[in-house]
Amino acid sequence: MSNLKISIIGAGSAVFSLRLVSDLYKTPSLQGTTVCLMDVDEGRLDAITTLATKLAEENGACIRFEKSTELEQAVDGANYVINTAMLGGHAFLEKMRAIGEKHGYFRGIDTQEFNMVSDYYTLTNWQQLGFFLQLARLMERKAPGAWMLQAANPVFEGTTLIRRHSPVKMVGFCHGHYGVLEVARRIGLDPEKVDWQVAGVNHGIWLTRFHYAGKDATPLIEAYFNERESWAPENPFDDHLSFAAEDAFRFYGQLPVGDTVRNSSWKYHYDEPTKKKWYGEPWGGADSPSGWKWYQQSLEQITALMAQLTRLVQHNPTQNLSELILSQVEQLPAVFMEAKKLLDGKQLSGEQHIPFIDAIENNHAGRFVVNVPNSGSIPGIADDVAVEIPALVDSQGIHPEKLEPGLHERVRKWYLAPRIQRMEWALEAFLKRDPSLVVEFLMRDPRTRSYEQAKGVVEEIFGSGKDVHEPK
Amino acid sequence: MSNLKISIIGAGSAVFSLRLVSDLYKTPSLQGTTVCLMDVDEGRLDAITTLATKLAEENGACIRFEKSTELEQAVDGANYVINTAMLGGHAFLEKMRAIGEKHGYFRGIDTQEFNMVSDYYTLTNWQQLGFFLQLARLMERKAPGAWMLQAANPVFEGTTLIRRHSPVKMVGFCHGHYGVLEVARRIGLDPEKVDWQVAGVNHGIWLTRFHYAGKDATPLIEAYFNERESWAPENPFDDHLSFAAEDAFRFYGQLPVGDTVRNSSWKYHYDEPTKKKWYGEPWGGADSPSGWKWYQQSLEQITALMAQLTRLVQHNPTQNLSELILSQVEQLPAVFMEAKKLLDGKQLSGEQHIPFIDAIENNHAGRFVVNVPNSGSIPGIADDVAVEIPALVDSQGIHPEKLEPGLHERVRKWYLAPRIQRMEWALEAFLKRDPSLVVEFLMRDPRTRSYEQAKGVVEEIFGSGKDVHEPK
Repeated sequence: MSNLKISIIGAGSAVFSLRLVSDLYKTPSLQGTTVCLMDVDEGRLDAITTLATKLAEENGACIRFEKSTELEQAVDGANYVINTAMLGGHAFLEKMRAIGEKHGYFRGIDTQEFNMVSDYYTLTNWQQLGFFLQLARLMERKAPGAWMLQAANPVFEGTTLIRRHSPVKMVGFCHGHYGVLEVARRIGLDPEKVDWQVAGVNHGIWLTRFHYAGKDATPLIEAYFNERESWAPENPFDDHLSFAAEDAFRFYGQLPVGDTVRNSSWKYHYDEPTKKKWYGEPWGGADSPSGWKWYQQSLEQITALMAQLTRLVQHNPTQNLSELILSQVEQLPAVFMEAKKLLDGKQLSGEQHIPFIDAIENNHAGRFVVNVPNSGSIPGIADDVAVEIPALVDSQGIHPEKLEPGLHERVRKWYLAPRIQRMEWALEAFLKRDPSLVVEFLMRDPRTRSYEQAKGVVEEIFGSGKDVHEPK
Repeated sequence: MSNLKISIIGAGSAVFSLRLVSDLYKTPSLQGTTVCLMDVDEGRLDAITTLATKLAEENGACIRFEKSTELEQAVDGANYVINTAMLGGHAFLEKMRAIGEKHGYFRGIDTQEFNMVSDYYTLTNWQQLGFFLQLARLMERKAPGAWMLQAANPVFEGTTLIRRHSPVKMVGFCHGHYGVLEVARRIGLDPEKVDWQVAGVNHGIWLTRFHYAGKDATPLIEAYFNERESWAPENPFDDHLSFAAEDAFRFYGQLPVGDTVRNSSWKYHYDEPTKKKWYGEPWGGADSPSGWKWYQQSLEQITALMAQLTRLVQHNPTQNLSELILSQVEQLPAVFMEAKKLLDGKQLSGEQHIPFIDAIENNHAGRFVVNVPNSGSIPGIADDVAVEIPALVDSQGIHPEKLEPGLHERVRKWYLAPRIQRMEWALEAFLKRDPSLVVEFLMRDPRTRSYEQAKGVVEEIFGSGKDVHEPK
């Protein structure tokens, strides 16, 4: 029996928390664990606590739940702290985006070359980066020796920041690498039989190895692109084989994987018509105005669904939650598969956190894709920059795989190098809390037409801003 | 008596060649040298040969002159090859600029962030970069052991390219660092008494040490900026204490030196009014349309002057050239000081080539500012990237000075890193002769509004271009 305390920070993200709880009750060696659900939103916290408790009970799990609105209480004595909190929430992101667009920055100033994902804020969300460090400091005091499992974005900036400035054990997770399996399926291969590796930085990973039946199957991707007659996305996030992915594949010689397809240069993103051309009609990808609206509506539906489920369970505690979920999600195809997986005793959610804990605690070794300091894994990238790479994890820790073959020089030089540069600039601006560095950052932004424009948007976002100098 | 052969490639650049010849006749230990003047333009070659021969004779120099329109003949058996050739000449540069401007690229596509100097072409002048390698290869065969002294731009890309791809002994020179002395003079210090260092890459060097009477005099620069009432440039190149220099000094914490002041971000360069604001009225710096016109007119005047001098000397071989020059330049204040220096037996021109040769050949050790592979001089920059740093040169070779204090991290991270990245992109495009890489380069250019625009300008410049891919 496990005696662990796993704390989920920002547990009000109900789907994410339910995924973790379902993974947990499907992991026999972690029974006995205490899960501390923490969120500053009491209503959401109550809801997820109700649902998680019910789900665990119904599935005969031995999990003890605690809830708290206090960070310190959640961290205190934890063995694992899973951070999924997004400070300010979507309302903050949309407010920042709106100010950006008012000043001529389509999709907001956080949207940048190789960083187009609409909720991956590296420039304006200093609260978020500040929270990462605050959490690390708190863990140093209240949970020495515990692991921080970082799920909240920006994972790239966050992992680099925390690992540089705190001795806390910490790893960043994302699920973008599952795109490899989707690609395999789409081009007619059995995803289970693909021998693959990805490498890069979070939201900037590339298919470095793609072997099938002992042979390099990269030519099959090229053949798919050469031969296909047409292509249309099933939803805004369906971009793995988009024209943008194809174009990047041809230029870089390796396929962009997961959110990397979204995180391209302005070439595919100048405006909505351009996005549609490269990511397909009718949305133009997830990061177009209409694609993002689609995503926000999905989120609202899920939030409403969770509230509805909570009410039903609270009203009738003996009702079977699993049956309830399945009956409710029939009208929501977007979450139907997800819900089926959640309730299927044999399938894990795909989130890596619980299997990672199981690997560390019980030496149930497994393969993961982790965000950790490079330390030589990718040549030409500094040791203290967080990279996303495959690794074996066991009770001895994280053992990065040797990348064979390596990442193309083209990817490193034309994609990762400028992306890493922007990470460095963003972190310096944050660490010094210096809005004039954000102005300087924007002087390298193709949407900037004048110094006054960059200064204007930064002043509106950060207040008057120090050191914004101009000629007498 | 020296038995050297020094070849000047592109010797038709008359002022530059006369500077070298005057330095040579003022260097006793190099008497006996053979100077081979080489240029593909026979008329200009004849003119410079006439003037150089006459100047040397009149000053009692023991220099033998040869002339050739054949590169191989000039290189054959040379000990030093000074390369000042600009393939295509100004006509090529202006043609490329015009195509760029037609497609919406103000000042042409070679004008780039941190590379705004109007004749420093890194993207379109593949002939020039190709010539650098051709010359190096030829030297390997025809002048093994000889030194290549690179004066022709782009010195940064050129030095990096040649040193990476040829074993030839080679160093790049520029005179931008003399800006330090000008700054000292302007803020009221005796330039001779300043203890200074600069570091960076060519046209991107920064005042890392500025000591006066044993103390750091950097605060005097800041005080000058704080206290001055107004500022107006004397000519388009007078920018050392411009508002652009001041702004960069405040942001980077070190003063940009020489052409570095021109090579700033778009902040100071978006358009002519912006340039005027930062570089001063009426020109807006040397790289504005009117500033560059001023420069071109100066060049034309000098060319006309050289032609006139040549005619006069040919017509009346006994006439004293020195007197002739002084009488002719009275109407040309821009070159008057230059001519006085040329004819003053005690003053060298400031070009480093001849003193460098004297240091190597005769162990007349001297301090130079050289462009050489970094090899650890500036931390955080790859060893095989050419940096511009001070060095002691003697018969044992080039000994870079230890930089004390070092270059600010701010400069490395926000200026040199992106500049170096663009050097790498430009060199790859050249080495692969791949116009699609220039398109990709332009996708990161703030003037680009669409892929079609970038493709259009590249197609017009390079022909239809291979691998310019677009969605089906």
